[in-house]
Amino acid sequence: MAGLMLPTLSGVHTSIEIAGTLAFALSGLVEAARKKLDAVGVCVVAGVAAFGGGTLRDVLLDRRPLFWIEQSWYVWCLLMVCITAMLLMRAKHFRPTQTSMQWPDALGLGLFAASGTQIALGMQMPALIAVLMGVITATFGGVLRDIVCNEIPTAFHDHHPYAVCAFVGGWVVVLLQWLGFDPDWVITLGAATTTLLRVAALYWGWRLPSWKLEGDD
Amino acid sequence: MAGLMLPTLSGVHTSIEIAGTLAFALSGLVEAARKKLDAVGVCVVAGVAAFGGGTLRDVLLDRRPLFWIEQSWYVWCLLMVCITAMLLMRAKHFRPTQTSMQWPDALGLGLFAASGTQIALGMQMPALIAVLMGVITATFGGVLRDIVCNEIPTAFHDHHPYAVCAFVGGWVVVLLQWLGFDPDWVITLGAATTTLLRVAALYWGWRLPSWKLEGDD
Amino acid sequence: MAGLMLPTLSGVHTSIEIAGTLAFALSGLVEAARKKLDAVGVCVVAGVAAFGGGTLRDVLLDRRPLFWIEQSWYVWCLLMVCITAMLLMRAKHFRPTQTSMQWPDALGLGLFAASGTQIALGMQMPALIAVLMGVITATFGGVLRDIVCNEIPTAFHDHHPYAVCAFVGGWVVVLLQWLGFDPDWVITLGAATTTLLRVAALYWGWRLPSWKLEGDD
Repeated sequence: MAGLMLPTLSGVHTSIEIAGTLAFALSGLVEAARKKLDAVGVCVVAGVAAFGGGTLRDVLLDRRPLFWIEQSWYVWCLLMVCITAMLLMRAKHFRPTQTSMQWPDALGLGLFAASGTQIALGMQMPALIAVLMGVITATFGGVLRDIVCNEIPTAFHDHHPYAVCAFVGGWVVVLLQWLGFDPDWVITLGAATTTLLRVAALYWGWRLPSWKLEGDD
Repeated sequence: MAGLMLPTLSGVHTSIEIAGTLAFALSGLVEAARKKLDAVGVCVVAGVAAFGGGTLRDVLLDRRPLFWIEQSWYVWCLLMVCITAMLLMRAKHFRPTQTSMQWPDALGLGLFAASGTQIALGMQMPALIAVLMGVITATFGGVLRDIVCNEIPTAFHDHHPYAVCAFVGGWVVVLLQWLGFDPDWVITLGAATTTLLRVAALYWGWRLPSWKLEGDD
Repeated sequence: MAGLMLPTLSGVHTSIEIAGTLAFALSGLVEAARKKLDAVGVCVVAGVAAFGGGTLRDVLLDRRPLFWIEQSWYVWCLLMVCITAMLLMRAKHFRPTQTSMQWPDALGLGLFAASGTQIALGMQMPALIAVLMGVITATFGGVLRDIVCNEIPTAFHDHHPYAVCAFVGGWVVVLLQWLGFDPDWVITLGAATTTLLRVAALYWGWRLPSWKLEGDD
């Protein structure tokens, strides 16, 4: 990914990527703590939340080596974060709340949706598939985290726009790429669209349309 | 797949494939509705139910691009089906029942088991593995659908013959291929075996043997 | 794998591999019985428990064909074991207890952790990734078994050292390989470390540190 970015932008991108991955990992940590998992469970669930989306994208597209295998410092950092967080949480000086994680999470959602879409477009995938790959990159970490923790994935039933924001941002990436924009601008504007939509959805409390189905089949 | 079929047969095969995929997608829709998922959850669960089995087969056999990536109109159709179904279900004019879906589902089960087996045989897989790949193609969409919805997969605990029918049909494909039958006849007779077994199982209420295990380990 | 071993050792290794796979399959059988799954569910859950870890490792590392596809007698044996076990359990003459399976399970844990690490090192993976691949090989069969059975994976919340033993044994493999030991000794000593740690953990009742988190986020 780094090769796609100008020096001036890459610092910002890297910072957002780290903030987003950290937010995803922390969401795993918090859910693991709520489920009273042990230290192994905490590390695995944090890892699944942080790397699961990109891993599923790469398996579906057959890209190898996986990003966390090629750059194994990712995994070292994850281990450090988990150990630090467990020590801090134990000392009760620190507990990330869902609210405090919403902002870095929105940054990560935007960046991973845009970069996932761009990666798939670079492999000549059709537009819809590329957008789906962006959505999978950005959201399936959380989905797999919830499946491992034996919950229905939050992204599928809380009626808050989350995957939908990533979907819209992915189409912005497709459109801008098709218009011949510079790759840096494509990713920046695509990520910004998703992130701003997500922030707006949180701020104004937007909800997905619900439906009722009386009785069981 | 299309290349394996004679013009006269391919129309029938394509119709069955569409009916089967639709039945699988609708099974996802109904389960998503029962679990009160939102619009995103409905689309994902329907997609997992429709494409999950073939996707898992292709990942295990390392076939790429995945069929729904190569033919992305599949995904467009799925989106249309989901949106239409959500509008119809909301208006309460329409609700697919499990009973009404059993017949297209049995068609899909037969065709996907036979075509999955044939694909694996074409890759020189041993007979048992090819049959298993057929069973996975035909049944793991439903299994993954249930896992995402936080249920024990129906196929594993309802004691109705389902995967077993696909297993038998797969062996028919292996046998006919080994006897040198025309590929079109192989897939047609294999699919028919599975579908008829499934229909018979539903009609006469066949049940898998159950077993009791008193006390816990 | 067999090619890596001297004739004198390979018999022992093969015996351990068979004992370990059997223990993993039986753990699936017992859980499937507890969840009252039908015959199909029993076979699938036993298969997932026995082959799931190695399969996930091979998908992540993009190794094909999968070991149970290349050596399909594995799958035949699994079917035999499941049918035999179901008949025996039905006749109530036999029921494996968790305690009776702990010893072959500890053997399997050690051998699969060491061989998984060695396979990844042979593909030039970084040390941490190789160790993780060993842990995944040895533990994710059980994790996937629990997910399919709609449980939070035992390995993540029972506070008994299990994955941690595999983790330590993996580092022993990395160290010995780096010191230039013979591959047979590497795998033997690595596996022995994990197995002995696991046995010690069971014997003395070691527990992972727990942590409390009051209130929900």
